Formats: sequence, structure tokens, C-alpha cells
Amino acid sequence: MDHDFKEKFISLKDRLAEIHDISHANAVLGWDQATYMPSGGAVARGRQMATLGKLAHEKFTDPALAKLLEDLSHRAEDLDPDGDEARLIQVVQKDLAKAQKIPADFLGRLNVHFAKSYQAWAEARPKNDFASLQDDLECTLDFSRAYANYLGYQDHIADPLIGASDEGMSVREVRPLFAELRKVLVPLVRAVGEAEPLDDSCLKQFYDKDRQLGVGLELAQTFGYDLNRGRQDLTHHPFCTTFSISDVRITTRVNEHDLGDAIFSTLHEAGHALYEQGIHPNLEATPLASGTSSGVHESQSRLWENIIGRSLGFWSYAYPKLQKEFPDQLSKVSLPSFYQAINKVSPSLIRTDADELTYNLHVIIRFDLECQLLEGSLSIADLPEAWHTRYQQDLGLRAQDDRNGVLQDVHWYAGFIGGAFQGYTLGNIMSAQIYQAALKAKPNIPQDIRQGHFEDLHLWLKSHIYQHGRKFSPNELLKRATGETLSISPYLDYLREKYADLYQISL
Amino acid sequence: MDHDFKEKFISLKDRLAEIHDISHANAVLGWDQATYMPSGGAVARGRQMATLGKLAHEKFTDPALAKLLEDLSHRAEDLDPDGDEARLIQVVQKDLAKAQKIPADFLGRLNVHFAKSYQAWAEARPKNDFASLQDDLECTLDFSRAYANYLGYQDHIADPLIGASDEGMSVREVRPLFAELRKVLVPLVRAVGEAEPLDDSCLKQFYDKDRQLGVGLELAQTFGYDLNRGRQDLTHHPFCTTFSISDVRITTRVNEHDLGDAIFSTLHEAGHALYEQGIHPNLEATPLASGTSSGVHESQSRLWENIIGRSLGFWSYAYPKLQKEFPDQLSKVSLPSFYQAINKVSPSLIRTDADELTYNLHVIIRFDLECQLLEGSLSIADLPEAWHTRYQQDLGLRAQDDRNGVLQDVHWYAGFIGGAFQGYTLGNIMSAQIYQAALKAKPNIPQDIRQGHFEDLHLWLKSHIYQHGRKFSPNELLKRATGETLSISPYLDYLREKYADLYQISL
Repeated sequence: MDHDFKEKFISLKDRLAEIHDISHANAVLGWDQATYMPSGGAVARGRQMATLGKLAHEKFTDPALAKLLEDLSHRAEDLDPDGDEARLIQVVQKDLAKAQKIPADFLGRLNVHFAKSYQAWAEARPKNDFASLQDDLECTLDFSRAYANYLGYQDHIADPLIGASDEGMSVREVRPLFAELRKVLVPLVRAVGEAEPLDDSCLKQFYDKDRQLGVGLELAQTFGYDLNRGRQDLTHHPFCTTFSISDVRITTRVNEHDLGDAIFSTLHEAGHALYEQGIHPNLEATPLASGTSSGVHESQSRLWENIIGRSLGFWSYAYPKLQKEFPDQLSKVSLPSFYQAINKVSPSLIRTDADELTYNLHVIIRFDLECQLLEGSLSIADLPEAWHTRYQQDLGLRAQDDRNGVLQDVHWYAGFIGGAFQGYTLGNIMSAQIYQAALKAKPNIPQDIRQGHFEDLHLWLKSHIYQHGRKFSPNELLKRATGETLSISPYLDYLREKYADLYQISL
Repeated sequence: MDHDFKEKFISLKDRLAEIHDISHANAVLGWDQATYMPSGGAVARGRQMATLGKLAHEKFTDPALAKLLEDLSHRAEDLDPDGDEARLIQVVQKDLAKAQKIPADFLGRLNVHFAKSYQAWAEARPKNDFASLQDDLECTLDFSRAYANYLGYQDHIADPLIGASDEGMSVREVRPLFAELRKVLVPLVRAVGEAEPLDDSCLKQFYDKDRQLGVGLELAQTFGYDLNRGRQDLTHHPFCTTFSISDVRITTRVNEHDLGDAIFSTLHEAGHALYEQGIHPNLEATPLASGTSSGVHESQSRLWENIIGRSLGFWSYAYPKLQKEFPDQLSKVSLPSFYQAINKVSPSLIRTDADELTYNLHVIIRFDLECQLLEGSLSIADLPEAWHTRYQQDLGLRAQDDRNGVLQDVHWYAGFIGGAFQGYTLGNIMSAQIYQAALKAKPNIPQDIRQGHFEDLHLWLKSHIYQHGRKFSPNELLKRATGETLSISPYLDYLREKYADLYQISL
């Protein structure tokens, strides 16, 4: 690199660090809003977050940054194409190209609408009042289509929205994948439903809140979650948030009458946190310092929550500790019974309460409905009934009201219709593929886990996934980590094997 | 106001709100840093806070803002001179005139130096190593002088530094005031020292942490601290911080072997918080939405902490509640004994542990030394010994080391030398003057307080002090609230009467 290039590169990084600082300061404001903010603080907080969001956007779309980037990109041929410098330039170019397509005043109006619509939803949901939200949803749909049109697409209007969180994905890719999964899941869930049900009553006893939090966090630490660079707080909805590679926090919710809630939400968020904590420090304060896509992020939360966290091997290590913490509730419950309890399949109406198997059906329904709404083949007015029909078809259930139907998830009421859900199931699919690759490289992992050693798995994930941050696109990362493009077979094999065994059914 | 004026005024307010949002977002980052941030988060947090600080400064010194302000000020004659609009324009003009005098790169270098010096102090203090800090302090002194020179002064080089936190104050004002106070305090403390000592052993028992926090917060709420617009958290050093008029938080420290620590630090910070919560909502998101000076702010913390919080009248209401919370420790301690315990005078080496009476001597020593350092009549090398000499003279004590001497306070190691301390004692002086005015207007206040009613006092303070925020300068506010300029007699009368009675001495 010549001197002029170096100087410009440093100047670019300074600008990016400033933007990074503004948006990560905003993350602190969001965390505080969800954890400790008194109710009176809400109005000013909304204004403060909007101000920082606007500032970050302004700084990112400053023509001086675009000019720097252009100068640098013309002279990047000498760089290692997989090195941090070349990748940074490339990712920022992609991000900027997108950001430049969206008018600033559109973003402003959008955020005002989302804030208003969210507020309306928070009031309408308990009242089961879908009708009052219809106008807001129409408006959201218009905004979503406008956004897709600004970004542009070739095939399907949902593609830019999907691509915004899962780069490289599109309706043409996702639809057949989900169709294949659904073709396996619907009969599998039906077969499980006809088998002898598993008993999860041991989880539905009284479990002290602080002890639940303590156990969950201890397990997360065993996985490798570093509390010198993180912490756990209580919130209504669990989440993981990043202030820097060295300050990645999780939040947990606790149900004193359901042990599974806190433990698995903690392991889930810890999976997200392991990813963010594992990003290479060289990427700090750059746009590369985050997960590469919604799906890949979810693959890590699901890997630790489900593939590890709901496995017999893991609990043969962890269950004695849990029994020691809750002797009154668990001393007479055997490990196999506990393993069955945490894997009980039971079709239900609420996505966030769903078991590992039916969860994907909830997601696929939402994905299909989003696409139909965007295409115009489904109207907002018909959405509640379309929802009920699909639940009846796929899960054999029909909610009595919209509160437990189309009003249940915040996504469409506080953000775009489109692109909001596919990442959850893409993550599940990837989690099995990635775990299979880790096992191939380190066959000792299952044995390690039974003994409470997670280092080899953690290190493998860190070196093949986490450390790269956004350096590689999801498809590229998957190829590098597993040697293959996205494949659904490992996930289907995993589900079939696990649930055939649990429910003693042949498939 | 004509249309063009209105439009420009709105545009000014929008700019000011943006700056306000950035700096109050920064306050959230600072609060999190002191309360919940994991240790790993420190480096990125320092960078994020510096970024937001720089941004706020850049936005404030944007020439477009100065232009707007100039246009508006030329046409502000028609405005009510005491109205929000005229006062806003006037205060922003003053702030901007100051900010424009300080080069941005000077501020940058300054903050880097303060961060480094703070770090060095945090390491040197436990090692009692003043020598290692001498160079940093020399540098701080240079920065302090340079800052004073940028702002300009007529009389004394300390004046711009004093004026930065206590507008309208200067060495010429403060020195005789403090000399007068010292002339009363030194013999008063001596007389108290010769009297029968009071017994505070009842405070030095084991008191459960959570209960202490609970009691303190309950008392703060009784004063009027609104928890819908505030909260309490634990920190090493107590403070009050404002994110908006509707989100004003306090922090408290607890000593399980000294009941006084948590209770009085809570009442102190609650006093600051009452001020900030009491600012008129019309001033939100403008530079008027904060206390008008360090001294006036401190007058409110001291009024609630000392004049009310250490009075017999207050505890005749509150003590039965405290006894109920801590029956093992207090059921056999009478109200008069408890009142004596919380007012025990005992000259000591550490400012933050000082009683109400000797506290001002600690402040006056620091103020005098600051002025001497700035003038050049005292060198940094001679500072530790000058410190010991003054403690010997004023308090009759000499620390064995610098850790309990000149190294005890963070102020000079993380900020300017000059202007750092006078506000504490100015606040004490004002607190008595303001309380006297409140009593004159509402003679029922002492009787109310004995019955646990603080509304009349709170409302009087709100209407005469709090609601105005920075609309009026400290001197103007004092004149409006009390009818007089700053006067030390109410404070001297208060101290003489209280301590003559407590120690049964005639003065």
C-alpha cells in the first residue's frame, strides 16, 4: 500500500468508527429502554434514539465518505482479496450503495410510522382489536413496497427485504427450501401427535427466579460466554445486544412456573452473544464487527439452544447440577424423563412458546403470508383469516381470536412486512449443517460435551464463523466453514433421528 | 413574532434539541459505565463517549447555528425579556461565545490528557505515589491556565474557571465570603472539639444493604422524588444524572457498617434530582433544561440532605419508620440520641466523610490552593506540604500520607485545577438563604415537616428555583427567589444555632 492509500484508508476507518460509535451508543439507549428506564423516560428516549439514528445515517451518506471509498476501491487490486482491508472496502461499498438508494426523509417518515404503529399495536393486542390496526398495516405495506422498489429487484418484491437481513437469499431460494421442510414437518408433527405424548410436568413446578437466572447464566458461561465482556439482565422479551466486541449483553425472561423459559432463552441469547464476542478484535469499530446475516446469527443461537442445549449428552453433564440447584423439584426426576420433558412436541398457537419441531411451521406460515401480502395476492383485510386457515392446515389448530393469531408478533407492527421471519428457519437449517462440519473436524465433540467441555466446539465455531464478523457473505461463510452451499439434509436428518427416537416412531 | 422569526426560532430549537439529545445520550453511556458496564467495555465506552462529546461540540459551533442566533438576537426586542424565548436566545449566546473561544483541537487534547491523568491517579492513589503524578498535574495546570486565557479575565486567572460552573462568581467575590465563613468555622469547630463529644455508635452497627437502600429511597420519595421519572442504582461514588426532565436518576453507595452513608448520600442526590425533575417541561430539549450553576444545584442537595435531612423536625416524623425497619439496631436508641449521632462533629482528613460543619473547611482549603496554583504562588511540587499545613491550621489534623491528603479527590486529576470546589460551599451558603425565604413565605413548613408533609416546601422550591432551569443566572435567581443577593448570614446563623444547641456551648 502506498502512502496516499494508507492515509485515505485510515481516514475511512475514522469515519466508520465515528458512525459505529453513534450507532452502538444508540444500542446502549435501547438496552436501557428495555431494562431499567423509568416509564417517564419513554418520550425523550424515543427522540434521542431517532436523533442518533439520523446522525449515523447522515454521516454514512456524507459524500466525502463516498469519495474516499471510490478512491480506495480503484486502488484495492493489490490487497489480499480475503484480507480485512479489501473486505472492509467491499462491504462498505455494498452498504453504501443500498443506503444511497433510500431518501433520508423516507427513513424519517418510516421511523415515525413504525413508532406510531408499534404504539397502536401495544394497545390493540390485549383488546384483540385487529380492525384498529388495518390502516397502519396498509401503510406499513406501502412503506415496505416502496423500500423494496428503492432497492430494486428482479424476481420478487420481497427479495430486497429478505436480502436486507439475509444477503444472497430470495424468494426463489427460500420458497422451495421451506416447502421441502414443510413437506417433512407436517407429517412428522402429525406422527408425533399420534404417538404416546411426553410428560413435561416436571418443568411446570415453582422454580425460584434468581436461581433460574443463576443456573442459566452458569450454563452460558460453561459454553464460553465471557462475563468480563458481558452481563445478563431481565426483560420482557429476551434479546442480545452489542456495544462493542468486549461488551455483549444478553437479557432473559423468567417464568417461575416453567423452568424451560429462562434456561432456553438464556442459552439462545448466549449463542448470539458467543458469536458477537468471538468477532476478531481487529474488526472492532468497523461495519465488519457484527454477525453476517440474520440466518447465520440465528444458526448460532439455535445451535447452542437446541442442538447442544436440548441434547441428552449435554444434560448428562448438566442435569446433576440442575438437580442440586432444585432438589425439591427434580431429585426424583430421572435424566431420561428430564430430556423428554424439554423436548416435548406440542403444536401450539404462539411462535415464541413453540417446541423445536413445530417452531419452523410458525415461521413458514409468516414467510408465506408476507410474500402474499407484498405480491398483492392477499389483502390486509383477509390476513387474519388467512392466518387461521394456515394454522389449521399446518398445525391442526385454530386460534379463538387474533390476539393469539396475527396480533401475536411485534414484527409487522414495528417494522417492514417482508424479510422479518425467514432468518429464524434459515438459522435452524444452517445450525445442523454447521454442527455437522464441526463434528467432522472434531469427532471428540460429543464426548467432550458429555463431560462439560465446550472448548473445542467453541473454538471451531470461533475460527470458522465468529471471528470473521461480516467479512464474508452468508453463502461464502457457509462454503468456507462447511465446504458446501446451504443444504437442508443435515437438519432433516437431525430432526428425524432425534424425534423418531424420542417418540419411538419409525419414519 | 413575525413568520420569519418564528421559523428561525423553530430551526434554532431543532438544532439545540439535536445537540441536547447527543449529550444526554452521552449521559446514559456515563451512567451505564458507572453502574452496570462489564470491565471489558471500558475502552470502547471511552471512545464512544469522546465521539458523542466531539459531535455535540461540532454541532454547537456550526456557523449556521451562530448565524441563526445572530438573526434572532437582532430581532428579539419585542419578546418578553423574562420569557422562555428571550432567555433561551440569551443563554445560548453566552454559551456559544464561550465555546467559540476554545479551539476544538485544544478540547481534544484536553480530554485525552484528562483520561490519561485520571488513569494514572487511579493507580497512584492506593500506592500513595504523588511523585508519579507531578508531571500530569503540571500539564493539567498548563491546560487550566490556557483555558482561562482562551476565555479571558480581568482580575484573577481562576475567574473563568470559577465562572464556568458558577456564573457571576469570581475570586474577588468568593475569597472574602470564604474568609468570613472560615473565621466563624475554625473557632466554632474548636469550641465543639472542647465540648462533650456526641455519640454516633448507634450508626456504626450492621445494617442490611437492601433495607438501607429501601429506606433511603422511601424518604427521597417522601420529599417528592418521582420514581416514574427516576430510579436508584448502586455505584462506588453517588451521583445524580439527567437523561431528560422525565428521567432523572440517582445512585447511592452503601456501607453496611455505617447507616449514615447510604441515607444521607441518597437524600443529597435526591435533592439534585428534585431540582432536575422540577424543571418546567417547556424547557425540555433546550440548553435551559438543567440547573443554573454548580452552587445553586448544591444548594438543593444540601437543603434536602442537611437543613431538612439532619433536622430534629424531620426525624421526629421519620425516625419511628427507621426504627421499625431496623428494630434490632435502633429500638433502644432515643430520637434525641439519633439526632445527635447524625450531627456529630468530628474533624477528619477526608472531605467526603466530613460532617456538615467541617465540610466547608475542606472546600475552602482546596479553593485557596487552586487559586495559589493558578496564580503561580504555589508550585505543584510544594502542593502536598501546603495541603498538610492547611489541614493542621484549619482542622488541627495532619494526614500521615498523601493518599489521605492531596490524592483523595479525583477533581484535579480528571479535570481543571480551578473552579472545581467553590460550588460545594456556595451551595451550603445559599441553602440557608433559600430555606429562610421559603419559611418566610410559608411559615407552616417546619410544622408540616414534623408531620411528614413536604409538599409546600417542594412546591415553593419548584416555583422559585427548579422550574426556571437555566433561564436566570444564579445571582438573578437568588434575587428573585429570596429578594436579596447572596448573603452568608442565614447560613452562619443556622450553623451557630444548631451546633450551640447540639453541643451545649454558647457562642
